[in-house]
Order: sequence, then C-alpha cells, then structure tokens
Amino acid sequence: MSIQPIKWEDGCLKLIDQTKLPSKLEIIECRDYHSVADAIKTMKVRGAPAIGASAAFGMAIGAGEIKAKDRQKWFEELEKIAETLKQTRPTAVNLFWAINRMMETARSHKNLTTEEIVEALKKEAEKIAKEDIESNLAIGRFGNALVPQKARILTHCNAGALATVGYGTALGVIRAAHEAGKDIEVFADETRPFLQGARLTAWELLQDNIPVTLITDNMAGYVMSKGMVDLVIVGADRIAANGDTANKIGTYTLAVLAKENNIPFYIAAPVSTIDMSITTGDEIPIEERAHDEVTHIRDTVIAPEGVRVFNPAFDVTPHNLITAIITDKGVVRKPYEQTLKNLV
Amino acid sequence: MSIQPIKWEDGCLKLIDQTKLPSKLEIIECRDYHSVADAIKTMKVRGAPAIGASAAFGMAIGAGEIKAKDRQKWFEELEKIAETLKQTRPTAVNLFWAINRMMETARSHKNLTTEEIVEALKKEAEKIAKEDIESNLAIGRFGNALVPQKARILTHCNAGALATVGYGTALGVIRAAHEAGKDIEVFADETRPFLQGARLTAWELLQDNIPVTLITDNMAGYVMSKGMVDLVIVGADRIAANGDTANKIGTYTLAVLAKENNIPFYIAAPVSTIDMSITTGDEIPIEERAHDEVTHIRDTVIAPEGVRVFNPAFDVTPHNLITAIITDKGVVRKPYEQTLKNLV
Repeated sequence: MSIQPIKWEDGCLKLIDQTKLPSKLEIIECRDYHSVADAIKTMKVRGAPAIGASAAFGMAIGAGEIKAKDRQKWFEELEKIAETLKQTRPTAVNLFWAINRMMETARSHKNLTTEEIVEALKKEAEKIAKEDIESNLAIGRFGNALVPQKARILTHCNAGALATVGYGTALGVIRAAHEAGKDIEVFADETRPFLQGARLTAWELLQDNIPVTLITDNMAGYVMSKGMVDLVIVGADRIAANGDTANKIGTYTLAVLAKENNIPFYIAAPVSTIDMSITTGDEIPIEERAHDEVTHIRDTVIAPEGVRVFNPAFDVTPHNLITAIITDKGVVRKPYEQTLKNLV
Repeated sequence: MSIQPIKWEDGCLKLIDQTKLPSKLEIIECRDYHSVADAIKTMKVRGAPAIGASAAFGMAIGAGEIKAKDRQKWFEELEKIAETLKQTRPTAVNLFWAINRMMETARSHKNLTTEEIVEALKKEAEKIAKEDIESNLAIGRFGNALVPQKARILTHCNAGALATVGYGTALGVIRAAHEAGKDIEVFADETRPFLQGARLTAWELLQDNIPVTLITDNMAGYVMSKGMVDLVIVGADRIAANGDTANKIGTYTLAVLAKENNIPFYIAAPVSTIDMSITTGDEIPIEERAHDEVTHIRDTVIAPEGVRVFNPAFDVTPHNLITAIITDKGVVRKPYEQTLKNLV
C-alpha cells in the first residue's frame, strides 16, 4: 500500500496534489473545510471514492470550525458545510453518499455535546477511509477471478490508489492479478483533457512495476482491433439502478469498441457508487468543466483564441454494454436491475 | 480560397509551417529537395493531398539540383531524390502517387535536355497542385448533395485547406455546404497526439466563419450518443481496393461509434488516394511516430519519465463501416470492390 493520496493526521487532511503529478509529488494540508471543498473542485483530489472520503474528512473538519453554541444553529451550520461540499462536483455519487453518512452520524449523536459530535464525525470519516481500502481489496479479490493468467488490460482515466484511499478499484483488480503472479500488461489511455491516464495511472503503475504502455484515447480502438487487448476495466462515478454507469468521458466509447471487438468490458466500483434512487443513466447529472482544460495544457495554448468548446467530464455507458460490475460485495451481471438490487 | 498552405514562387516552395499554428502563421521556404523532405517528415506540411503536391514540387526542385551531365546518371540521381521523398512517410499513398507521376513525366521527356526536363517537372507539379484544388471543389460539390439543410457534422484531424493545396476534402464538403447557405455546425475532435483538430481545423473554420465546437477525441462518443451529430465526415490517407480506409488514428473509433448510433459515416478523398494495388486495409503500412509526441505537448511533459508508449499515426476503418466514399469523380457506396474499380 505504497501510494496514500489521503492521510489524516492530527485533525489535518493531507492530500497529494494530483494536478502536479507526475512532475512533482506535493502534499497539500487542509485545515478548514473550505480548502477541502477547493481541493475537490479543482481536482487536486479526484476519483469517486477519494472525493467521498475527502468530503467526509471535510465534514469532520468543518464541524470543528462551527462557532455556534445553540444546538439547532450548530446543526444548521453543519448542513451548510454539507451543502458547500456537495456543490463541488455533481456526478460522482460517493461524494453525496459520504456527506449524507456523516450527517446521519451527527444526527444520531445529537444528544451529545458538540465536541463529542465532532469526535464522532472524525471517527466516522476515518471509518469511511478504512472501509474504502478494505472495499478495494475485496474488489481486487473478486475481480482477479475474472482475469486470465496472461492478460493485456486496457484502462481509462485513473481508478487507482490515487482515485481512492488506497489500492484502487480498476487498478485494484489489476494489482490483485499482478500480485497473484499473473502476466499482466496494461494499456493506459491518456484521458484528455485532464490527462489522468498519462499523469496518474502511468505513474502509479510504474511505481508498482506493473508493465504499462501509454496511448492517446483515440488509439484504444486501434489496439482493440489489432487483438492487443484481452479485457477492458474501468472505474465508475455513479451506477444507476439498471446498471447504466457514469464514468470519465471516453468510457462509453471504450464500451462500444469492446462490443465491436468481442472484448469483455468490466466496471470496478464499491457499492457506495450504486445509486438506487435513480432508474437509468439519463438521470445522472453530467458535469461540464472549464473550457481552458481543453484549449490549454498547463500554460501551453493548443487551440485558436475564441473557439467554442464543449467539455463534459463524464459520459454514461448503457448497461447492455457492460459485461459485469465488480463490487466489494461480489461480481454482478445482467439483468442488473435484479442483481444490483440483491447486492445493496 | 483564403488559406493557401502551399505556394510555388520562382522555383521556391513556400509552406505554412503547420507545427506553429494556431499561435503563429509562419512560412518556410524550401529551395532544395532536402528541406521539402524534412518539412514532410516533421509534419510542417501534412495531409495526404498536401504531402503529395509538396513532394511533386520537391521532385521539380531536386531535378534542378542535379549536377550530373550524363543522361543515365542524371536519371539515377532523380530516382534517388524520389526515394528520399518517398521515405518521409509511409501511409498516405498520394505521396507515392505524386512522386511516381513526376518520375513518369521525367521519363516521357527523356529525349529533351535536362534543363527542359526540369521545366517539364515544374509544370507537372503545378498541374498536380492545380488539379488538387479542382478535385477538392468537385468533392465539395458531390459531398454537398449528401448534407442536409441543417447539419451538425463531426470531423477528425484536419482534412481541410491545410491538408491539401486548398479548399480541403472533408472540410471541402463542409465549406461547400456552408457556401450553399446550409445551416452547418461542426464538432472538431482535437486529434491527439498532434492536435490537428484543435490547432488546424478549428483555426481554419474560424477563419471562414463556419461555426465550430472543439472537443477532445474521447467526447465524440458522448456527442453522438446525445443526438448532437447528424453525420461524420473525415479524409483518407489510403483507400484499399475493397474500400478499407487508412486515416488519422481515431477514425476507426468514430466509424464504430457512428454505426452504434446510426449516424452516416463518410470518407472524402480524391481518387489519387485509392490504391488499387492492394486488396484490403491489412496491407496498408501504419506509420509509428516518436514517443515524445505522446509524452510531451510542446515543452510540457505530461507523462512520467520512462513510460512505454505506443504511437501509431493511423488506423484502418473496415469498408463495411463506411456509408459512402466521396471522391472528385463522384460518390461511391458498397460494394466498394466494384464501385471503386469503376471509378479509377
């Protein structure tokens, strides 16, 4: 468990600044909830499980910042903090799941002193973080069973240690297969515009000596058509009750290409990613991000001034294109409406 | 005909340096064939028809450089120049087509003085350039008939004026539809790793006031799945006798996505792009380019040091995924084995 993107020490949330990787390994220290919210919004911390856990710590930090003495007022302030943290990013459901769980924890301790509630919230955030790593290890175990002895695996974005509290979801399965002594090679899509694949996944796999080849997103079809890929595995930001899955922009394309080339297409995610409150992927809000993510790479301008840009950060893969969903509670297959219900 | 990437003035080939766009509009002057070969290899000039025409001028310039007095020796030197120019890039067949045509021109004048042969070669190169623009206008006319009155068109890479001697192939169709008063909007894929879409297509369309929205390559699937695209149109680097088409990496993916979403997928290219000497796309050599195209954007490093990279510059779209091929001699459809044969 070498890479730890999220650390909690003496009431301070320490995050690897993922916008600086792979050039620099910088740690930012969040001592107030506003800096946690900012870190999520600016993608210094990203990945559905990682933003969930970070927001949980943000709730604990924020609770400690509340000055109100009146109990009702105190809870109103906590609600506002929850709201601020919820408004950082709209798509990944783990964010809302973690914040709601923290609010419930606070409410269930409402008869204690506010100091005691803050302590309970810190413990709950630590529990969420610890559970996340355990979840990922379980995803790795379940997923490993689906990976052949020799496998060339294509992945997208970063669903690795850096996207979680540790070990990773999609990369957790890859790690588990590698640790099991299987002959694993990975193709990492660079994942424009934010380049999580080039900057984070390639870096993470190199750290662990797992063979990785970097390609641009538009090369995935070529390597699949050439028989160079045995399976595709990616993470998820939100899974609807019918199995439709929101994940980093480009995921849908990979699923269509996998179908065309008869390659299994797997989603790896903890059950906290499943949102049973929505029926289909059409209801998942898709975040649109700033245009300069597309027109600039760091300080380099790559497009003409004044060009119109569309920058959706996620897309939705219809359930019928998904071979199986690997969760911490087991692997589920179609019909997802039924199998997901049995799971949660 | 505002954008002229290739100009021939007083025995000098003047090229827009396309690696500098859109930040700078710089002209490079090639006065010897080595600088023409270098401009093609380093993609200062790129696009199948543009490299064909540039190589033709390179042949004319090179012929004028030959010092040999002996006629047989003179032709041997010209063969060497042809070989050097042919070795710049392997995939686009227009390069070989243009160079072979220039060699045939030289041979058909073998009884003239070498000075007269050089003059004949200059004239032939000018003819190739002139014909290219006429071809593109014809492609535009034929293609326009396929474009609805209101159309949102997705394109990839740059098959525009900059990829030709003028007007463009895929963008020629878009220009013709726009000039015909149709309501045209374009989605331009940025086209990693060389960013021809972001740097060139977006720039070119902005110059002509054709509405264009820039997206990253992995967003094409999303916009198609959301019903935001009426047709896809791209250029070609080589078309096999059965219709299989090599074009910029990522084209195959678009064709698969278009099929999944029931969107017409068109290739626009002059007949000089058709290579009847090969049966299927499997025989088309696919250029692999330098790794730093993927790991760097200008001077910015975007991947960890030492990561393995795969950088194929083209892919092959199987003929069954192509709705129609728009050429300067008309539009052809399946069965391409038959219809292409009738065309050339």
